[in-house]
Amino acid sequence: MPKDTLHDGLIAPGFDEGSCLSRYQSNLYRKISPHKPSSYLLSRLRNYEHLHKKCGPHTKSYKTAMAQLKSSDQGNSSVGGSTECKYVVWISYSGLGNKILTITSAFLYALLTNRVLLVDRGKDMADLFCEPFPEKSWLLSKDFSIKEKFNKFDQKSPHCYGNMLKNKKNTSSELVPSFLYLHLAHDYDEQDKLFFCDEYQSLTGKVPWLIMRTDNYFVPSLFLMPSFEQELEKLFPEKETVFHHLGRYLFHPSNHVWGLITRYYLAHLAKADERIGIQVRTFESGPSPLQHVMNQIYACVFKEKLLPQVDKQKPVVTAPSGIPKLKSVLITSLTSGYSENMRNMYWEHPTVNGDLIGVFQPSHEGHQQTDKNLHDRKAWAEMYLLSLCDVLVTSAWSTFGYVAQGLGGLKPWILYKPENQTMPNPPCRQVMSMEPCFHAPPFYDCKAKRGVDTGALVPHVRHCEDMSWGLKLVGSHESHDQL
Amino acid sequence: MPKDTLHDGLIAPGFDEGSCLSRYQSNLYRKISPHKPSSYLLSRLRNYEHLHKKCGPHTKSYKTAMAQLKSSDQGNSSVGGSTECKYVVWISYSGLGNKILTITSAFLYALLTNRVLLVDRGKDMADLFCEPFPEKSWLLSKDFSIKEKFNKFDQKSPHCYGNMLKNKKNTSSELVPSFLYLHLAHDYDEQDKLFFCDEYQSLTGKVPWLIMRTDNYFVPSLFLMPSFEQELEKLFPEKETVFHHLGRYLFHPSNHVWGLITRYYLAHLAKADERIGIQVRTFESGPSPLQHVMNQIYACVFKEKLLPQVDKQKPVVTAPSGIPKLKSVLITSLTSGYSENMRNMYWEHPTVNGDLIGVFQPSHEGHQQTDKNLHDRKAWAEMYLLSLCDVLVTSAWSTFGYVAQGLGGLKPWILYKPENQTMPNPPCRQVMSMEPCFHAPPFYDCKAKRGVDTGALVPHVRHCEDMSWGLKLVGSHESHDQL
Ligand SMILES: Nc1nc2c(ncn2[C@@H]2O[C@H](COP(=O)(O)OP(=O)(O)O)[C@@H](O)[C@H]2O)c(=O)[nH]1
Ligand SMILES: Nc1nc2c(ncn2[C@@H]2O[C@H](COP(=O)(O)OP(=O)(O)O)[C@@H](O)[C@H]2O)c(=O)[nH]1
Repeated sequence: MPKDTLHDGLIAPGFDEGSCLSRYQSNLYRKISPHKPSSYLLSRLRNYEHLHKKCGPHTKSYKTAMAQLKSSDQGNSSVGGSTECKYVVWISYSGLGNKILTITSAFLYALLTNRVLLVDRGKDMADLFCEPFPEKSWLLSKDFSIKEKFNKFDQKSPHCYGNMLKNKKNTSSELVPSFLYLHLAHDYDEQDKLFFCDEYQSLTGKVPWLIMRTDNYFVPSLFLMPSFEQELEKLFPEKETVFHHLGRYLFHPSNHVWGLITRYYLAHLAKADERIGIQVRTFESGPSPLQHVMNQIYACVFKEKLLPQVDKQKPVVTAPSGIPKLKSVLITSLTSGYSENMRNMYWEHPTVNGDLIGVFQPSHEGHQQTDKNLHDRKAWAEMYLLSLCDVLVTSAWSTFGYVAQGLGGLKPWILYKPENQTMPNPPCRQVMSMEPCFHAPPFYDCKAKRGVDTGALVPHVRHCEDMSWGLKLVGSHESHDQL
Repeated sequence: MPKDTLHDGLIAPGFDEGSCLSRYQSNLYRKISPHKPSSYLLSRLRNYEHLHKKCGPHTKSYKTAMAQLKSSDQGNSSVGGSTECKYVVWISYSGLGNKILTITSAFLYALLTNRVLLVDRGKDMADLFCEPFPEKSWLLSKDFSIKEKFNKFDQKSPHCYGNMLKNKKNTSSELVPSFLYLHLAHDYDEQDKLFFCDEYQSLTGKVPWLIMRTDNYFVPSLFLMPSFEQELEKLFPEKETVFHHLGRYLFHPSNHVWGLITRYYLAHLAKADERIGIQVRTFESGPSPLQHVMNQIYACVFKEKLLPQVDKQKPVVTAPSGIPKLKSVLITSLTSGYSENMRNMYWEHPTVNGDLIGVFQPSHEGHQQTDKNLHDRKAWAEMYLLSLCDVLVTSAWSTFGYVAQGLGGLKPWILYKPENQTMPNPPCRQVMSMEPCFHAPPFYDCKAKRGVDTGALVPHVRHCEDMSWGLKLVGSHESHDQL
């Protein structure tokens, strides 16, 4: 196996190839990334894999930690603290794009705190992804004792860390609980957000089981915590590559999804001279946004010269060179109107430069159907297909698009969110970095104990292009750009 | 211009290239036909062009003939007979596939009777087709005097030949009318059908203007008329090539339609290793035929090995050679259900042999919208695109499919017409010849003056595969096959 099939060393050797074809075949579809993982990241990943092997499901350490959890769950006031292995348990929550980003966030947190990441399999995690770590599964074993309680954990649960802080209970005592529930979802409150203050990490640090529910890519806030600063600098000298590297490390499409990806790619995209991905996701309620969003897409791709305009006067235009370029447009959307409109336009009229444009949309599922097997497989396949494009246009606020851009190492043109059923002006802009946006970051200065604009503290954590209050990591070149 | 761009001599030299790109570019998209036109056909076409030039719109002869028509129309009992040029006027009628076949029939009749074909431009004939003859238009001039009456001509019109025969009027007298209306549509009666008896051709032969309304490809019945037998034998030694040659001679897509054809072909079909056209046309009323027709299509393409089956057990199948074939399926249909179903099947599952299948449908117009400009352009483009495929599956009874097969020189697998919402068994068969089917032929022995099975008189006129009472021309090889 040549070295580059292992993704610049991201992938540990020794996996079984047949059970996860994508791990070894993705290099046939992706261009080689210009971003190389640091050797420190690679060595930390190898260390993590070692830890995961030691602590993963069904190991002796796992059983010990489970036993402690179980006894505390049964009402014994047995406390944690002295287990050999500590865990972050990720609860399956929200849409698939969100899931991919939150698993990444949880994994980075685990890496920084020497914990082992375990993933709640939900309805289809095992169906969608290969195992990322050698030998031991990342999936929570089915007998995990408090799994049935996952769905009931909320901000008011007695084990919710934010709630405990509110009630000033337990948090500063010597008694370390065997598990904590961390509520880091969009609706989390001031106390829940204290998780991102170093001083509150001292307790969490001792708890063997941290159980986390989140729909946020909270990585940018980890970069604002002094305790992780040095380590993150070493792990990611190129700051805008966090999701790019960790996403490629963690998320390998299962064979079922790989079949969807490769068949679609080879039949529709492979032979084009250029591939343009357009991810259309609308969050407007009320009347169909088709008209103004369609206009916005055209305004964006024409203004930015991503696609050629059409000539409505001439029936045929010959490319000046005589050899027209073939561009394939991959549109993903829950509805079929956008691709039909564009396909018709490029069928009915020639482009001004004679280029040929094919427009393709794999599915139009109508509405979000999270956790339905085939639906989720297609959603994952489509994110991945977008990531294989050469140029990307994405929709504001959508983690679906963030995943595509991050895996692809692409800086998309992002379509601003329309307000009042009107096309924004300008329609889009190219993003500063390929990192996802953290949609609900804390605005709190832990030291000064007061509000602060967390998007103005350091050059590499900035507000997002598509959401003024969001935070994202940017590289050192981009951090001086004007928003 | 190399010789083969002129379609084996079918096309006369000297046309302006820019005004009709398809005439000179179609050879870039079509395989060379294995069927060569006879040199006699070529010389007769050159003669015809000469005649057309002499008699076409705005010539002196045309004006003379027009004047005669006008004066008779104004009630003068002026009679025809002595004009220099005689005409067949084709009335625009029925769907586009029908139109193409009936123009061809009228043209062959004109060729056999030394008449000049003039075409009623209807709503869009000029928009869809190039001029087929050099110098003089085939379109009826807009000032053609009795054009407004076209829509009113019917079986009961006094100038309807069948009606005249019914009333025993005028037909054997010395008085030759200046025009006759020939009603050769599906609802024509016994007297109308006498047109196909030699003895009744003696009057029609003298009439300067024959005005014809038909939705029938009546060529097979011309082959049963002794007076034309010798000439047809010389023109078409290969009998199943009548529409193949005349269709390629007459019907060149206008530049607008050529744009539709070439853009679609290059963006979706050109790069495939094989192109399979599937033309889906349903004539069932009542509940949607989607389910049983879809089943029928699969049953046909799998049984005849036109497309590979899918493997529903395996997520990925690798082609034994390592290099999968790419097959593009072009589906045409008024609705999108068939292509969506097939596209999903080949996306969700691998083929048993690892081949890749792309499924494409240019339009789904919902319902027939004859004579709407863009609708008809697309219909014509789709017939033509089907004709560029390597393999064809067509629907019973549809002239849309006949046009595609004839232009393409293809013997399609024809899907039998379902009865009672049930899939026929067998689902399809390959046709004996690429000729269209004459849907409403006469069953009359002109000599014996009694009914006869006209599909059993000569080896080269047989009943159609898709319509037991229809007639079609078959080649000498096929004429001994069992139906
Ligand atoms: N197949 C497909 N599913 C989509 C598309 N857009 C949204 N969805 C569905 O809706 C869900 C949206 O949730 P998520 O992936 O978290 O993205 P977000 O809501 O845009 O941030 C996806 O996971 C899919 O289930 C699309 O373009 N294609
Ligand atoms: N674009 C398009 N139009 C179709 C299709 N099938 C039927 N139509 C429309 O319906 C008409 C059918 O009439 P015709 O061409 O005479 O074919 P027939 O009725 O199948 O013999 C066409 O001319 C089109 O206007 C199709 O697959 N694609």
